[in-house]
Amino acid sequence: MEDTNRQVRLASRPEGMPSTDDFETVETDVPAPGDGEVLVRTRYLSVDPYMRGRMRATTTYHEPWAVGEVLEGGVVGDVVASNHPGVAAGDVVTGRLDWADYGVADGAELTPVDPDLAPVSTALGVLGMPGRTAYFGMLDVAEPRPGDTVVVSGAAGAVGSVAGQIAALGGCRVVGIAGSAEKVAYLTEDLGFDAGVNYRRDEYPADLAEACPDGVDVYFDNVGGEVTDAVVPLVNDRVRIALCGQIALYNEEETPQGPRHFLKLSRTQCRVRGFSVRNYQDRTREANERLADWVRAGELEYRESVVEGLENAPEAFLGLFRGENVGKQLVRVRA
Amino acid sequence: MEDTNRQVRLASRPEGMPSTDDFETVETDVPAPGDGEVLVRTRYLSVDPYMRGRMRATTTYHEPWAVGEVLEGGVVGDVVASNHPGVAAGDVVTGRLDWADYGVADGAELTPVDPDLAPVSTALGVLGMPGRTAYFGMLDVAEPRPGDTVVVSGAAGAVGSVAGQIAALGGCRVVGIAGSAEKVAYLTEDLGFDAGVNYRRDEYPADLAEACPDGVDVYFDNVGGEVTDAVVPLVNDRVRIALCGQIALYNEEETPQGPRHFLKLSRTQCRVRGFSVRNYQDRTREANERLADWVRAGELEYRESVVEGLENAPEAFLGLFRGENVGKQLVRVRA
Repeated sequence: MEDTNRQVRLASRPEGMPSTDDFETVETDVPAPGDGEVLVRTRYLSVDPYMRGRMRATTTYHEPWAVGEVLEGGVVGDVVASNHPGVAAGDVVTGRLDWADYGVADGAELTPVDPDLAPVSTALGVLGMPGRTAYFGMLDVAEPRPGDTVVVSGAAGAVGSVAGQIAALGGCRVVGIAGSAEKVAYLTEDLGFDAGVNYRRDEYPADLAEACPDGVDVYFDNVGGEVTDAVVPLVNDRVRIALCGQIALYNEEETPQGPRHFLKLSRTQCRVRGFSVRNYQDRTREANERLADWVRAGELEYRESVVEGLENAPEAFLGLFRGENVGKQLVRVRA
Repeated sequence: MEDTNRQVRLASRPEGMPSTDDFETVETDVPAPGDGEVLVRTRYLSVDPYMRGRMRATTTYHEPWAVGEVLEGGVVGDVVASNHPGVAAGDVVTGRLDWADYGVADGAELTPVDPDLAPVSTALGVLGMPGRTAYFGMLDVAEPRPGDTVVVSGAAGAVGSVAGQIAALGGCRVVGIAGSAEKVAYLTEDLGFDAGVNYRRDEYPADLAEACPDGVDVYFDNVGGEVTDAVVPLVNDRVRIALCGQIALYNEEETPQGPRHFLKLSRTQCRVRGFSVRNYQDRTREANERLADWVRAGELEYRESVVEGLENAPEAFLGLFRGENVGKQLVRVRA
């Protein structure tokens, strides 16, 4: 390897909304794979809201990153060298790897990507962790029934767009909440949602009520905060709420205040469940196959927002919190 | 019947905390039972927090009362006259009846009370709706496992005291939250709770954390509001929360503000469920038999707070919101 390896590291723990100063790009040597390990050259990085949690000093889903440590996340890349019998140089793989030009991982932890199925970047989106999150969250956690009114927040995002389409495939009336008129048009015109509501409008609560004339039976929540505050007053008896994410709150340093929802949820005999795709690792294959079938059949649309260049990965991450992405936010490190 | 019949009626819809002016006691004739109906002379009235909801103009669990309408609730009384083949004069029965000296009900809607099993008043408490609420809420909704830390709010009340004891019978570590040092002593000394915490102390959140060194696996909530705010930060992964009641919020006219709990609940993969005992009507007999077995065996303690006189029923109701009762709040109308 004559190449050098750029890594994106945590320069400081953000307080509130992160800035690019909280990240640094450092040049280092290309790592050498050890026994059973594989060297991967990055094509795409996945940029995900949950990563904000790892920038704190406390453990949420994952161990926190140390200041100065290289970030890691979902990567699709090419195998450059392999010390693992199941992986060969030239394979396209996906796995949890450094935010870097090159990364090393245990070959057993990598998953092959089929370039003939769909663009390899989809292994980080509709056919990857976000797609599976939507699949399990909607089908196992939210459990919509045909005819239900299903509301999805963050509906134009990587998870929400898939979650809403899965509900629509199941015969539900699907209402998406997103942050711009363009996104709302994407929901109704491209994704087949029955209605879309722009939460940045002053009339948002009234718009949402109008879009849900029979109330809300299922709420798939990626956002939380004020977006959710307009949903709760509309819920029907026996509402099911799948708490997937709360991106509106991830940059808060103190527990924010808002309306108390438990009285309404108590009276409606709600069922609220938080979940993580990590609970469903034994069913990864099932979800991947079903999602791939839908994509092949043209029943599941997806979009990607691609930022060019590893050095722009922090900016792409910050964009998630400004709602800049439509569909899956990726960084293309190498074409 | 030469007797007259006093009825407690809704004089006006309360705003916020009700006052005795919102009620009026009116003398009227003793009603005559129609076909299939039974005339019952009241011994005890049940005083329940959920009744606050029926004083509003909007439907919660039940239809609202009209202003001027007689209140109704759980009653134990003696059958004076019966036009129903399954009920005879002299029987002791329980059912939903007027807050009055006398009431009429469809004989099919009344349940016989066995005076040899326990004092008949228990048909409104440990062996009645509150006992069954605790039974189904703890065993079916909260689903504690042996060794779990189970926190119960309103723990000295009619439902909470039973819920906590059921969890203790199931091998859990039970921590009760109540509103006075006397109640806390009742929990730990008489009911066998492992710990009790007084939410009126300034140190309440720290006291609760100290009482739950391994966090909280199950929370059976009768209270909500600030009482719950101290519980949520302590919850463990996969916490189960049974929302039974939110008495702290029942007198609020606007949705009150408080900390947003969904971020914590999302990350811990919570399961929050509201429930009503009315969902379990097909299992009433099962619950009644099991509760009676526990009472007979001395495994389930109970206490009653009895106010004397129908005319004092409104005051007894208001006392619920001031936390005056220990165990089941009753009004004795006739000895």
